[in-house]
Amino acid sequence: MKKYLMTPGPCPVPPEVRLALSRPVIHHRTEEYHAIHAAVVDGLRKILKTEKNDVFLFASTGTGAMESAVANTLSAGDKAIVVRGGKFSERWGELCRAYGAIFIPLDIEWGKSVDPGLIEKQLTENPDVRVVFTTLCETSTGAKTDIEAIGTIVAGTGAILVVDAVTGLGVSEVETDAWGLDVVICGGQKAFMVPTGLAFVCVSEKARERVDLAKSPRYYFDYRRAKKAADKNETAWSAPASLIIALKESIDRILGEGVENVIARHALLSGALRTGVEALGLKVLADSPADGVTAILPPEGIPADDLRKTMLDKYGVHVAGGQERLRGKIIRIGTMGYCDTLDVIAALSALEMSLVNLGYTVDLGLGVRAAEEVLMATKKHKRHKK
Amino acid sequence: MKKYLMTPGPCPVPPEVRLALSRPVIHHRTEEYHAIHAAVVDGLRKILKTEKNDVFLFASTGTGAMESAVANTLSAGDKAIVVRGGKFSERWGELCRAYGAIFIPLDIEWGKSVDPGLIEKQLTENPDVRVVFTTLCETSTGAKTDIEAIGTIVAGTGAILVVDAVTGLGVSEVETDAWGLDVVICGGQKAFMVPTGLAFVCVSEKARERVDLAKSPRYYFDYRRAKKAADKNETAWSAPASLIIALKESIDRILGEGVENVIARHALLSGALRTGVEALGLKVLADSPADGVTAILPPEGIPADDLRKTMLDKYGVHVAGGQERLRGKIIRIGTMGYCDTLDVIAALSALEMSLVNLGYTVDLGLGVRAAEEVLMATKKHKRHKK
Repeated sequence: MKKYLMTPGPCPVPPEVRLALSRPVIHHRTEEYHAIHAAVVDGLRKILKTEKNDVFLFASTGTGAMESAVANTLSAGDKAIVVRGGKFSERWGELCRAYGAIFIPLDIEWGKSVDPGLIEKQLTENPDVRVVFTTLCETSTGAKTDIEAIGTIVAGTGAILVVDAVTGLGVSEVETDAWGLDVVICGGQKAFMVPTGLAFVCVSEKARERVDLAKSPRYYFDYRRAKKAADKNETAWSAPASLIIALKESIDRILGEGVENVIARHALLSGALRTGVEALGLKVLADSPADGVTAILPPEGIPADDLRKTMLDKYGVHVAGGQERLRGKIIRIGTMGYCDTLDVIAALSALEMSLVNLGYTVDLGLGVRAAEEVLMATKKHKRHKK
Repeated sequence: MKKYLMTPGPCPVPPEVRLALSRPVIHHRTEEYHAIHAAVVDGLRKILKTEKNDVFLFASTGTGAMESAVANTLSAGDKAIVVRGGKFSERWGELCRAYGAIFIPLDIEWGKSVDPGLIEKQLTENPDVRVVFTTLCETSTGAKTDIEAIGTIVAGTGAILVVDAVTGLGVSEVETDAWGLDVVICGGQKAFMVPTGLAFVCVSEKARERVDLAKSPRYYFDYRRAKKAADKNETAWSAPASLIIALKESIDRILGEGVENVIARHALLSGALRTGVEALGLKVLADSPADGVTAILPPEGIPADDLRKTMLDKYGVHVAGGQERLRGKIIRIGTMGYCDTLDVIAALSALEMSLVNLGYTVDLGLGVRAAEEVLMATKKHKRHKK
């Protein structure tokens, strides 16, 4: 059976990028590698919308890059604010705890997004807060955070703003400089269309000051060592050159399509998916849904995991289930990176056929039709150039 | 020009393994992945010669795995012994410093190997030492350490033994259980023939006790989280599944050839290389040379970097230069993993032609002939099965 990987990470890797991975290995202390590294960093800066913030590449997953942000900006006993509304944003709290930092949790219901005013209030009441940890898109709920508003608030204080954008960069708008984002965390395996194992962080000058002050032990993820290497177009340790070469191919695709077009495509596809899902009588969990992952509540009486398994076993469409308190309650469909119009149609078709397989009464084709109407109404969507 | 990657890491990746990297991405929380993970861990245990020590896989380079050993076994103020005799073994000291551990340096001349008796003496004088950090093969000098002897010494104490085997496992004998090795560090990009980005550690029960006691902050590399995931044939964070699938291909090659045959091949090839080098009147730096990397002192009057560049530019043979205090003084030739008889001949031929190009007086063919005699004298060497 043909397989359709539509989980919210890892995401499909285009054949051309996979073939780049099969090229002979090159050494990472060579001019050939330096040129690739420079091109990757330059491309990432364009996508991050930053003129001169540092970009560091790490052989790690997104979690390693998240740890790097905590270890490089906080010392034991320092105070932080952590916005928590899902499995991944809760990780910021776990990381603060691991490093002995004190954090003020701003807990929101899973599926909701934080009111930026609450962060402003906490910052006013706690002028000693060093870092605010946020999540652009919470992968476990599909909820999007208003990072622009939070950025404006934090920029006016002595605190720095750290954003987990692993499931957001390359999907929706991120204006690192204009919004005043100090540390942006991202990974390769989602909108950047490379296999898992590569993470990158974008660090502002304001954050660099904290890096010099932070006393937490660190070595592999030390931004000071990363900076010294980055200035020579290298990584501090052996570069995962094959993954970085693949990333260059993906970045060329993104820049070839145009960053704004890539963002418009993600908005269109996830918008069509949500419309189709709702036409079938299902509910999208998030109040402010993100465009990279859609969390869906199945109809009354249809267990989410049965729905997920039917989509996979009968139709080859691989979507994710819920995690922790949402385990067994939702399915999550990823629409990131190498995803196009007919992938959304395939997912909706598998969804509606699976629902009928499981005894739910719905007109076949209803979800697909609703999505098609959305997709056809938008003329602005440009095709891949590459 | 054809390129021959003969640096001591990264090392060549066989075409079949590179093609495995180009397969469609799979999700890491699936039975399909669990089976691959289990097979990889099982294969690594066979190569490590351990019955039941834990094996954890990390998306990182070897340096990340080294940091994991420090962060998981020491608390600030704890005492350790660090054997230092090159750039990479010095890293153990830097890591101890980063985590606030106190270490007794056992410094040896670069190119020499430590006398295990010195470790015994220090352990006797310092019964509060928690961890002994060693290096099986020092990549910057090509010197091999007698880990068996050190293992026997440390096993009789309360301390644990940590071995950086990144440039040693899959090259020369490692008997994790029989020698009493508590933490063995390895990476994928050398004898394991996968691109850079994958590291693994093997942890004994004695080490696990220290893991529970250690108070250093850690999260991404936390062995407790790794253990919980490993028991389910998973990694704690998103698995770098494509690299792990490639590693499975490489492990199948190693087990197909037979671990003892792989070790014999490395010994034969590096032995032939050393004989050829000495026949040309050059000197091998290490007193106890390792079989994965050979550090060579060029003849008087021939700058090492000119030799290295000539080998690369004229003949496509990519070898490494010296690092830090050996910068400009040596060349280093890697013979790890996907390396066979005629690769050594190619390297020696490029070496002798480059020497003549640079004005050194030597009979062409002398080094190659000496190596051929070694290679032909050994009948025991079996061919790749795969």
